[in-house]
Amino acid sequence: MPSNHCPAVVLLSGGIDSATAAAVAVERGFAVHALTFRYGQRHVIEVEAARRVAAMVGAVGHVIVDLDLGGVVRSALTGQGDVPRDRPREAIARDIPPTYVPARNTIFLAYGLAMAETIGAFDIFIGANALDYSGYPDCRPEFIARFEELANVATAAGVTGRGRFTIHAPLIRMTKAEIIREGVRLGVDYSVTVSCYDPAAGGRACGRCDSCLLRKRGFAEAGVPDPTQYAEAAQP
Amino acid sequence: MPSNHCPAVVLLSGGIDSATAAAVAVERGFAVHALTFRYGQRHVIEVEAARRVAAMVGAVGHVIVDLDLGGVVRSALTGQGDVPRDRPREAIARDIPPTYVPARNTIFLAYGLAMAETIGAFDIFIGANALDYSGYPDCRPEFIARFEELANVATAAGVTGRGRFTIHAPLIRMTKAEIIREGVRLGVDYSVTVSCYDPAAGGRACGRCDSCLLRKRGFAEAGVPDPTQYAEAAQP
Repeated sequence: MPSNHCPAVVLLSGGIDSATAAAVAVERGFAVHALTFRYGQRHVIEVEAARRVAAMVGAVGHVIVDLDLGGVVRSALTGQGDVPRDRPREAIARDIPPTYVPARNTIFLAYGLAMAETIGAFDIFIGANALDYSGYPDCRPEFIARFEELANVATAAGVTGRGRFTIHAPLIRMTKAEIIREGVRLGVDYSVTVSCYDPAAGGRACGRCDSCLLRKRGFAEAGVPDPTQYAEAAQP
Repeated sequence: MPSNHCPAVVLLSGGIDSATAAAVAVERGFAVHALTFRYGQRHVIEVEAARRVAAMVGAVGHVIVDLDLGGVVRSALTGQGDVPRDRPREAIARDIPPTYVPARNTIFLAYGLAMAETIGAFDIFIGANALDYSGYPDCRPEFIARFEELANVATAAGVTGRGRFTIHAPLIRMTKAEIIREGVRLGVDYSVTVSCYDPAAGGRACGRCDSCLLRKRGFAEAGVPDPTQYAEAAQP
Protein backbone atom coordinates (compact mmCIF):
# COMPACT_ATOMS: atom_id res chain seq x y z
CA MET A 1 0.00 0.00 0.00
CA PRO A 2 1.28 3.50 -0.75
CA SER A 3 1.42 6.05 2.02
CA ASN A 4 -1.85 7.95 1.74
CA HIS A 5 -1.99 11.53 2.86
CA CYS A 6 -4.94 13.15 1.13
CA PRO A 7 -8.02 12.67 3.32
CA ALA A 8 -11.32 11.37 1.99
CA VAL A 9 -14.58 10.73 3.81
CA VAL A 10 -15.94 7.27 3.02
CA LEU A 11 -19.54 6.40 3.86
CA LEU A 12 -19.30 2.93 5.30
CA SER A 13 -22.37 0.83 5.95
CA GLY A 14 -20.69 -2.51 6.51
CA GLY A 15 -22.05 -4.02 3.29
CA ILE A 16 -20.34 -5.20 0.12
CA ASP A 17 -20.63 -1.94 -1.80
CA SER A 18 -19.23 0.46 0.77
CA ALA A 19 -16.42 -1.96 1.67
CA THR A 20 -15.45 -2.04 -2.00
CA ALA A 21 -15.74 1.74 -2.32
CA ALA A 22 -13.41 2.08 0.68
CA ALA A 23 -10.89 -0.23 -0.96
CA VAL A 24 -11.08 1.84 -4.15
CA ALA A 25 -10.44 5.01 -2.11
CA VAL A 26 -7.31 3.39 -0.64
CA GLU A 27 -6.11 2.27 -4.07
CA ARG A 28 -6.56 5.84 -5.37
CA GLY A 29 -4.25 7.07 -2.62
CA PHE A 30 -6.63 8.53 -0.06
CA ALA A 31 -6.45 8.33 3.71
CA VAL A 32 -9.87 6.93 4.64
CA HIS A 33 -11.98 8.71 7.24
CA ALA A 34 -14.91 6.36 7.60
CA LEU A 35 -18.40 7.57 8.52
CA THR A 36 -21.15 5.18 9.62
CA PHE A 37 -24.74 5.82 10.69
CA ARG A 38 -26.83 4.14 13.33
CA TYR A 39 -30.29 5.23 12.21
CA GLY A 40 -32.64 2.76 13.79
CA GLN A 41 -32.06 0.21 11.03
CA ARG A 42 -33.21 -3.36 11.69
CA HIS A 43 -29.81 -4.56 10.65
CA VAL A 44 -27.84 -2.58 13.23
CA ILE A 45 -25.28 -5.40 13.26
CA GLU A 46 -24.00 -3.78 10.07
CA VAL A 47 -22.45 -1.11 12.31
CA GLU A 48 -20.18 -3.79 13.78
CA ALA A 49 -19.42 -4.93 10.25
CA ALA A 50 -18.49 -1.33 9.39
CA ARG A 51 -15.97 -1.35 12.25
CA ARG A 52 -14.39 -4.51 10.83
CA VAL A 53 -14.30 -3.03 7.33
CA ALA A 54 -12.73 0.21 8.61
CA ALA A 55 -9.99 -1.83 10.28
CA MET A 56 -9.53 -3.99 7.18
CA VAL A 57 -8.92 -1.02 4.86
CA GLY A 58 -6.70 0.76 7.38
CA ALA A 59 -8.99 3.73 7.98
CA VAL A 60 -7.25 6.53 9.85
CA GLY A 61 -10.51 7.46 11.58
CA HIS A 62 -14.04 6.14 11.98
CA VAL A 63 -16.95 8.20 13.24
CA ILE A 64 -20.26 6.52 14.06
CA VAL A 65 -23.17 8.96 14.11
CA ASP A 66 -26.54 8.38 15.74
CA LEU A 67 -29.28 9.60 13.41
CA ASP A 68 -32.64 10.36 14.95
CA LEU A 69 -34.88 9.44 12.02
CA GLY A 70 -37.76 7.88 13.95
CA GLY A 71 -39.86 11.01 14.21
CA VAL A 72 -39.27 11.98 10.61
CA VAL A 73 -39.47 8.95 8.31
CA ARG A 74 -41.37 5.72 7.99
CA SER A 75 -39.67 2.77 6.31
CA ALA A 76 -39.63 -0.99 6.54
CA LEU A 77 -35.90 -0.65 7.08
CA THR A 78 -36.46 1.26 10.31
CA GLY A 79 -39.14 -1.07 11.60
CA GLN A 80 -42.35 0.30 10.06
CA GLY A 81 -43.77 -2.55 8.00
CA ASP A 82 -42.27 -5.80 6.80
CA VAL A 83 -39.13 -6.33 4.76
CA PRO A 84 -40.17 -8.01 1.47
CA ARG A 85 -38.82 -11.50 0.87
CA ASP A 86 -38.20 -13.70 -2.17
CA ARG A 87 -38.93 -10.94 -4.68
CA PRO A 88 -38.00 -11.75 -8.26
CA ARG A 89 -35.03 -9.94 -9.71
CA GLU A 90 -37.15 -7.86 -12.11
CA ALA A 91 -39.26 -6.55 -9.25
CA ILE A 92 -36.17 -5.64 -7.23
CA ALA A 93 -34.78 -3.72 -10.19
CA ARG A 94 -38.06 -2.01 -11.07
CA ASP A 95 -39.97 -0.96 -7.97
CA ILE A 96 -39.19 1.39 -5.13
CA PRO A 97 -39.64 -1.02 -2.20
CA PRO A 98 -40.91 -0.39 1.34
CA THR A 99 -37.29 -0.57 2.53
CA TYR A 100 -36.70 2.79 0.83
CA VAL A 101 -35.82 5.37 3.49
CA PRO A 102 -36.86 8.84 2.27
CA ALA A 103 -33.87 11.07 1.55
CA ARG A 104 -31.50 8.70 3.32
CA ASN A 105 -28.50 9.17 1.06
CA THR A 106 -29.14 12.93 1.01
CA ILE A 107 -28.85 12.95 4.80
CA PHE A 108 -25.82 10.62 4.74
CA LEU A 109 -23.99 12.75 2.16
CA ALA A 110 -24.92 15.96 4.00
CA TYR A 111 -23.20 14.56 7.08
CA GLY A 112 -20.31 13.40 4.92
CA LEU A 113 -19.99 16.92 3.54
CA ALA A 114 -20.00 18.40 7.06
CA MET A 115 -17.27 15.99 8.11
CA ALA A 116 -15.24 16.60 4.95
CA GLU A 117 -15.32 20.35 5.39
CA THR A 118 -14.36 19.97 9.04
CA ILE A 119 -11.31 17.77 8.40
CA GLY A 120 -10.25 19.59 5.23
CA ALA A 121 -11.20 16.82 2.81
CA PHE A 122 -12.64 17.51 -0.65
CA ASP A 123 -13.36 13.91 -1.60
CA ILE A 124 -16.32 11.84 -0.45
CA PHE A 125 -16.82 8.20 -1.42
CA ILE A 126 -20.19 6.47 -1.49
CA GLY A 127 -20.82 2.88 -2.57
CA ALA A 128 -24.07 3.65 -4.40
CA ASN A 129 -24.75 1.62 -7.49
CA ALA A 130 -27.47 2.15 -10.02
CA LEU A 131 -27.80 -1.32 -11.50
CA ASP A 132 -28.39 -3.77 -8.67
CA TYR A 133 -29.74 -0.99 -6.53
CA SER A 134 -33.13 -2.11 -5.30
CA GLY A 135 -34.84 0.78 -7.07
CA TYR A 136 -33.65 3.55 -4.76
CA PRO A 137 -33.74 6.99 -6.46
CA ASP A 138 -30.80 8.25 -4.40
CA CYS A 139 -28.46 5.61 -5.85
CA ARG A 140 -28.51 7.04 -9.39
CA PRO A 141 -25.82 9.03 -11.22
CA GLU A 142 -28.16 12.07 -11.49
CA PHE A 143 -28.43 12.17 -7.72
CA ILE A 144 -24.66 11.98 -7.22
CA ALA A 145 -24.07 14.73 -9.80
CA ARG A 146 -26.65 17.04 -8.21
CA PHE A 147 -25.22 16.49 -4.75
CA GLU A 148 -21.75 17.37 -5.99
CA GLU A 149 -23.07 20.65 -7.42
CA LEU A 150 -24.83 21.38 -4.15
CA ALA A 151 -21.70 20.63 -2.11
CA ASN A 152 -19.76 23.28 -3.96
CA VAL A 153 -22.22 26.07 -3.17
CA ALA A 154 -23.22 24.85 0.30
CA THR A 155 -19.87 25.20 2.01
CA ALA A 156 -17.34 27.79 3.00
CA ALA A 157 -14.61 25.64 1.45
CA GLY A 158 -16.56 25.46 -1.80
CA VAL A 159 -17.35 29.14 -2.16
CA THR A 160 -14.01 30.55 -1.08
CA GLY A 161 -12.32 28.52 -3.82
CA ARG A 162 -10.10 26.60 -1.40
CA GLY A 163 -10.98 23.47 -3.34
CA ARG A 164 -13.68 21.63 -5.19
CA PHE A 165 -15.67 18.80 -3.68
CA THR A 166 -15.91 15.55 -5.60
CA ILE A 167 -18.48 12.89 -4.78
CA HIS A 168 -16.92 9.59 -5.85
CA ALA A 169 -19.35 6.80 -6.63
CA PRO A 170 -16.90 4.35 -8.20
CA LEU A 171 -19.44 1.49 -8.32
CA ILE A 172 -22.33 3.45 -9.75
CA ARG A 173 -22.45 1.62 -13.09
CA MET A 174 -21.26 -1.80 -11.93
CA THR A 175 -23.29 -4.94 -11.31
CA LYS A 176 -22.99 -6.67 -7.96
CA ALA A 177 -20.84 -9.36 -9.60
CA GLU A 178 -18.50 -6.72 -11.05
CA ILE A 179 -18.28 -5.04 -7.65
CA ILE A 180 -17.34 -8.32 -5.99
CA ARG A 181 -14.69 -9.07 -8.60
CA GLU A 182 -13.26 -5.57 -8.14
CA GLY A 183 -13.22 -6.06 -4.37
CA VAL A 184 -11.48 -9.42 -4.66
CA ARG A 185 -8.85 -7.80 -6.86
CA LEU A 186 -8.34 -5.15 -4.17
CA GLY A 187 -8.07 -7.74 -1.40
CA VAL A 188 -11.43 -7.13 0.27
CA ASP A 189 -12.43 -9.95 2.62
CA TYR A 190 -16.22 -9.99 2.24
CA SER A 191 -16.65 -12.36 5.18
CA VAL A 192 -16.49 -9.30 7.46
CA THR A 193 -19.38 -7.55 5.63
CA VAL A 194 -23.11 -7.79 6.33
CA SER A 195 -25.88 -7.22 3.78
CA CYS A 196 -29.08 -8.67 5.26
CA TYR A 197 -31.88 -6.20 5.99
CA ASP A 198 -33.50 -8.42 8.59
CA PRO A 199 -31.00 -10.75 10.23
CA ALA A 200 -32.17 -13.63 12.41
CA ALA A 201 -31.34 -13.81 16.10
CA GLY A 202 -27.63 -14.57 16.32
CA GLY A 203 -26.95 -12.37 13.32
CA ARG A 204 -27.34 -14.90 10.52
CA ALA A 205 -28.49 -13.47 7.18
CA CYS A 206 -32.09 -14.28 6.26
CA GLY A 207 -31.15 -15.16 2.68
CA ARG A 208 -34.49 -13.91 1.35
CA CYS A 209 -34.64 -10.11 1.56
CA ASP A 210 -33.74 -8.03 -1.51
CA SER A 211 -30.29 -7.36 -0.11
CA CYS A 212 -29.52 -11.04 0.56
CA LEU A 213 -30.83 -12.02 -2.87
CA LEU A 214 -28.65 -9.41 -4.61
CA ARG A 215 -25.66 -10.56 -2.57
CA LYS A 216 -26.15 -14.27 -3.31
CA ARG A 217 -26.59 -13.67 -7.03
CA GLY A 218 -23.59 -11.34 -7.07
CA PHE A 219 -21.27 -13.98 -5.65
CA ALA A 220 -22.72 -16.66 -7.94
CA GLU A 221 -22.34 -14.49 -11.06
CA ALA A 222 -18.85 -13.39 -10.04
CA GLY A 223 -17.81 -17.02 -9.59
CA VAL A 224 -16.58 -16.18 -6.10
CA PRO A 225 -17.48 -18.38 -3.08
CA ASP A 226 -20.07 -16.62 -0.89
CA PRO A 227 -18.68 -16.48 2.66
CA THR A 228 -22.07 -15.51 4.14
CA GLN A 229 -23.70 -17.62 6.84
CA TYR A 230 -27.39 -17.76 5.93
CA ALA A 231 -30.13 -18.91 8.30
CA GLU A 232 -30.94 -22.58 7.71
CA ALA A 233 -34.59 -21.95 6.89
CA ALA A 234 -33.52 -19.94 3.89
CA GLN A 235 -31.48 -22.79 2.43
CA PRO A 236 -34.00 -25.03 0.67
CA MET B 1 -57.02 32.53 8.93
CA PRO B 2 -58.12 30.36 6.01
CA SER B 3 -58.43 26.64 6.52
CA ASN B 4 -55.11 25.22 5.36
CA HIS B 5 -54.95 21.71 4.00
CA CYS B 6 -51.82 21.45 1.88
CA PRO B 7 -48.95 20.34 4.13
CA ALA B 8 -45.59 22.10 4.20
CA VAL B 9 -42.51 21.36 6.27
CA VAL B 10 -41.20 24.51 7.95
CA LEU B 11 -37.70 24.54 9.44
CA LEU B 12 -38.17 26.34 12.72
CA SER B 13 -35.21 27.47 14.81
CA GLY B 14 -37.04 29.75 17.20
CA GLY B 15 -35.48 32.91 15.79
CA ILE B 16 -36.95 35.87 13.92
CA ASP B 17 -36.40 34.53 10.42
CA SER B 18 -37.94 31.11 10.77
CA ALA B 19 -40.88 32.50 12.76
CA THR B 20 -41.54 34.90 9.90
CA ALA B 21 -41.11 32.16 7.29
CA ALA B 22 -43.67 30.07 9.20
CA ALA B 23 -46.11 32.98 9.18
CA VAL B 24 -45.59 33.37 5.42
CA ALA B 25 -46.31 29.64 4.96
CA VAL B 26 -49.58 30.06 6.85
CA GLU B 27 -50.52 33.12 4.80
CA ARG B 28 -49.86 31.16 1.60
CA GLY B 29 -52.36 28.54 2.73
CA PHE B 30 -50.16 25.74 4.01
CA ALA B 31 -50.67 23.52 7.03
CA VAL B 32 -47.40 23.92 8.91
CA HIS B 33 -45.44 20.83 9.98
CA ALA B 34 -42.61 22.35 11.99
CA LEU B 35 -39.18 20.74 12.22
CA THR B 36 -36.62 21.83 14.80
CA PHE B 37 -33.11 20.56 15.52
CA ARG B 38 -31.28 20.13 18.78
CA TYR B 39 -27.71 19.88 17.53
CA GLY B 40 -25.58 20.73 20.51
CA GLN B 41 -26.01 24.46 19.93
CA ARG B 42 -25.01 26.78 22.77
CA HIS B 43 -28.37 28.46 22.44
CA VAL B 44 -30.46 25.36 23.03
CA ILE B 45 -33.11 27.61 24.61
CA GLU B 46 -34.07 28.40 21.02
CA VAL B 47 -35.73 24.96 20.95
CA GLU B 48 -38.18 26.19 23.58
CA ALA B 49 -38.69 29.32 21.50
CA ALA B 50 -39.44 27.09 18.52
CA ARG B 51 -42.19 25.37 20.51
CA ARG B 52 -43.73 28.76 21.27
CA VAL B 53 -43.50 29.83 17.63
CA ALA B 54 -45.08 26.55 16.46
CA ALA B 55 -47.99 27.16 18.80
CA MET B 56 -48.26 30.80 17.73
CA VAL B 57 -48.59 29.98 14.02
CA GLY B 58 -50.96 27.08 14.67
CA ALA B 59 -48.64 24.32 13.44
CA VAL B 60 -50.44 21.01 12.98
CA GLY B 61 -47.32 19.12 13.99
CA HIS B 62 -43.87 19.79 15.43
CA VAL B 63 -41.01 17.31 15.35
CA ILE B 64 -37.83 18.00 17.31
CA VAL B 65 -34.86 16.01 16.06
CA ASP B 66 -31.65 15.34 17.96
CA LEU B 67 -28.71 15.76 15.63
CA ASP B 68 -25.46 14.11 16.62
CA LEU B 69 -23.01 16.60 15.11
CA GLY B 70 -20.35 16.51 17.81
CA GLY B 71 -18.17 13.85 16.24
CA VAL B 72 -18.45 15.38 12.80
CA VAL B 73 -18.15 19.17 12.94
CA ARG B 74 -16.32 21.84 14.87
CA SER B 75 -17.97 25.22 15.32
CA ALA B 76 -18.14 28.01 17.84
CA LEU B 77 -21.90 27.49 17.74
CA THR B 78 -21.53 23.96 19.09
CA GLY B 79 -19.02 24.87 21.77
CA GLN B 80 -15.66 24.69 19.97
CA GLY B 81 -14.18 28.17 20.27
CA ASP B 82 -15.67 31.48 21.28
CA VAL B 83 -18.64 33.27 19.78
CA PRO B 84 -17.39 36.61 18.38
CA ARG B 85 -18.79 39.76 20.01
CA ASP B 86 -19.20 43.38 19.01
CA ARG B 87 -18.20 42.80 15.38
CA PRO B 88 -18.85 45.74 13.06
CA ARG B 89 -21.64 45.32 10.55
CA GLU B 90 -19.28 45.17 7.58
CA ALA B 91 -17.36 42.28 9.13
CA ILE B 92 -20.58 40.39 9.84
CA ALA B 93 -21.66 40.80 6.22
CA ARG B 94 -18.25 39.95 4.76
CA ASP B 95 -16.59 37.10 6.64
CA ILE B 96 -17.52 33.52 7.30
CA PRO B 97 -17.39 33.53 11.10
CA PRO B 98 -16.41 30.77 13.55
CA THR B 99 -20.12 30.27 14.27
CA TYR B 100 -20.46 28.76 10.80
CA VAL B 101 -21.48 25.10 11.17
CA PRO B 102 -20.24 23.14 8.13
CA ALA B 103 -23.10 21.96 5.90
CA ARG B 104 -25.68 22.76 8.58
CA ASN B 105 -28.46 23.89 6.27
CA THR B 106 -27.71 20.98 3.93
CA ILE B 107 -28.30 18.59 6.82
CA PHE B 108 -31.39 20.53 7.98
CA LEU B 109 -32.94 20.56 4.51
CA ALA B 110 -32.07 16.89 3.98
CA TYR B 111 -34.08 16.08 7.10
CA GLY B 112 -36.82 18.41 5.94
CA LEU B 113 -36.92 16.57 2.63
CA ALA B 114 -37.15 13.19 4.39
CA MET B 115 -40.04 14.49 6.50
CA ALA B 116 -41.77 16.07 3.51
CA GLU B 117 -41.63 12.87 1.50
CA THR B 118 -42.88 10.89 4.46
CA ILE B 119 -45.93 13.09 5.10
CA GLY B 120 -46.67 13.70 1.43
CA ALA B 121 -45.60 17.36 1.38
CA PHE B 122 -43.87 18.97 -1.61
CA ASP B 123 -43.17 22.33 -0.01
CA ILE B 124 -40.38 23.12 2.42
CA PHE B 125 -39.90 26.54 4.01
CA ILE B 126 -36.60 27.83 5.32
CA GLY B 127 -35.98 31.27 6.80
CA ALA B 128 -32.57 31.73 5.18
CA ASN B 129 -31.70 35.24 4.12
CA ALA B 130 -28.75 36.35 2.07
CA LEU B 131 -28.43 39.96 3.13
CA ASP B 132 -28.13 40.08 6.92
CA TYR B 133 -26.88 36.52 6.94
CA SER B 134 -23.62 36.51 8.85
CA GLY B 135 -21.69 35.32 5.80
CA TYR B 136 -23.00 31.77 5.74
CA PRO B 137 -22.66 30.16 2.29
CA ASP B 138 -25.73 27.98 2.85
CA CYS B 139 -28.01 31.02 3.19
CA ARG B 140 -27.64 32.13 -0.45
CA PRO B 141 -30.10 31.80 -3.33
CA GLU B 142 -27.67 29.55 -5.26
CA PHE B 143 -27.71 27.10 -2.38
CA ILE B 144 -31.50 27.03 -2.20
CA ALA B 145 -31.81 26.54 -5.98
CA ARG B 146 -29.30 23.67 -5.99
CA PHE B 147 -31.02 21.96 -3.09
CA GLU B 148 -34.36 22.16 -4.88
CA GLU B 149 -32.82 20.48 -7.94
CA LEU B 150 -31.32 17.81 -5.72
CA ALA B 151 -34.63 17.18 -3.94
CA ASN B 152 -36.33 16.35 -7.20
CA VAL B 153 -33.85 13.62 -8.14
CA ALA B 154 -33.18 12.36 -4.61
CA THR B 155 -36.65 11.10 -3.78
CA ALA B 156 -39.18 8.54 -4.86
CA ALA B 157 -41.83 11.26 -4.94
CA GLY B 158 -39.62 13.40 -7.16
CA VAL B 159 -38.69 10.74 -9.70
CA THR B 160 -42.07 9.06 -10.02
CA GLY B 161 -43.58 12.41 -11.00
CA ARG B 162 -46.05 12.45 -8.11
CA GLY B 163 -45.12 16.08 -7.56
CA ARG B 164 -42.33 18.60 -7.62
CA PHE B 165 -40.56 19.77 -4.49
CA THR B 166 -40.25 23.50 -3.92
CA ILE B 167 -37.84 24.96 -1.40
CA HIS B 168 -39.40 28.24 -0.27
CA ALA B 169 -36.99 30.83 1.09
CA PRO B 170 -39.36 33.81 1.20
CA LEU B 171 -36.93 36.02 3.12
CA ILE B 172 -33.86 35.31 1.02
CA ARG B 173 -33.52 38.82 -0.40
CA MET B 174 -34.90 40.80 2.55
CA THR B 175 -33.03 42.79 5.17
CA LYS B 176 -33.66 42.02 8.81
CA ALA B 177 -35.75 45.19 9.06
CA GLU B 178 -37.90 44.12 6.10
CA ILE B 179 -38.34 40.69 7.64
CA ILE B 180 -39.51 42.22 10.91
CA ARG B 181 -41.96 44.53 9.16
CA GLU B 182 -43.32 41.57 7.20
CA GLY B 183 -43.69 39.57 10.41
CA VAL B 184 -45.48 42.42 12.15
CA ARG B 185 -47.88 42.62 9.19
CA LEU B 186 -48.53 38.87 9.58
CA GLY B 187 -49.12 39.17 13.32
CA VAL B 188 -45.89 37.55 14.52
CA ASP B 189 -45.17 38.22 18.20
CA TYR B 190 -41.37 38.40 18.25
CA SER B 191 -41.25 38.36 22.03
CA VAL B 192 -41.48 34.56 21.86
CA THR B 193 -38.43 34.27 19.60
CA VAL B 194 -34.77 33.90 20.59
CA SER B 195 -31.79 34.98 18.49
CA CYS B 196 -28.78 35.08 20.82
CA TYR B 197 -25.95 32.61 20.05
CA ASP B 198 -24.63 32.64 23.59
CA PRO B 199 -27.32 33.48 26.12
CA ALA B 200 -26.44 34.32 29.72
CA ALA B 201 -27.59 32.15 32.61
CA GLY B 202 -31.31 32.72 32.94
CA GLY B 203 -31.67 32.95 29.18
CA ARG B 204 -31.12 36.67 28.64
CA ALA B 205 -29.67 37.62 25.28
CA CYS B 206 -26.02 38.73 25.36
CA GLY B 207 -26.69 41.69 23.06
CA ARG B 208 -23.22 41.46 21.56
CA CYS B 209 -22.96 38.36 19.33
CA ASP B 210 -23.55 38.70 15.59
CA SER B 211 -27.08 37.40 15.94
CA CYS B 212 -28.01 39.85 18.72
CA LEU B 213 -26.45 42.73 16.79
CA LEU B 214 -28.39 41.88 13.62
CA ARG B 215 -31.57 41.56 15.66
CA LYS B 216 -31.13 44.89 17.46
CA ARG B 217 -30.37 46.75 14.25
CA GLY B 218 -33.29 45.06 12.52
CA PHE B 219 -35.80 46.31 15.08
CA ALA B 220 -34.23 49.76 15.11
CA GLU B 221 -34.31 50.08 11.32
CA ALA B 222 -37.83 48.67 11.12
CA GLY B 223 -39.01 51.22 13.66
CA VAL B 224 -40.49 48.41 15.74
CA PRO B 225 -39.93 48.20 19.51
CA ASP B 226 -37.48 45.38 20.33
CA PRO B 227 -39.13 43.06 22.85
CA THR B 228 -35.86 41.29 23.68
CA GLN B 229 -34.52 41.19 27.22
CA TYR B 230 -30.79 41.79 26.90
CA ALA B 231 -28.31 41.10 29.68
CA GLU B 232 -27.58 44.33 31.58
CA ALA B 233 -23.85 44.25 30.86
CA ALA B 234 -24.62 44.62 27.19
CA GLN B 235 -26.61 47.83 27.69
CA PRO B 236 -24.00 50.57 27.93
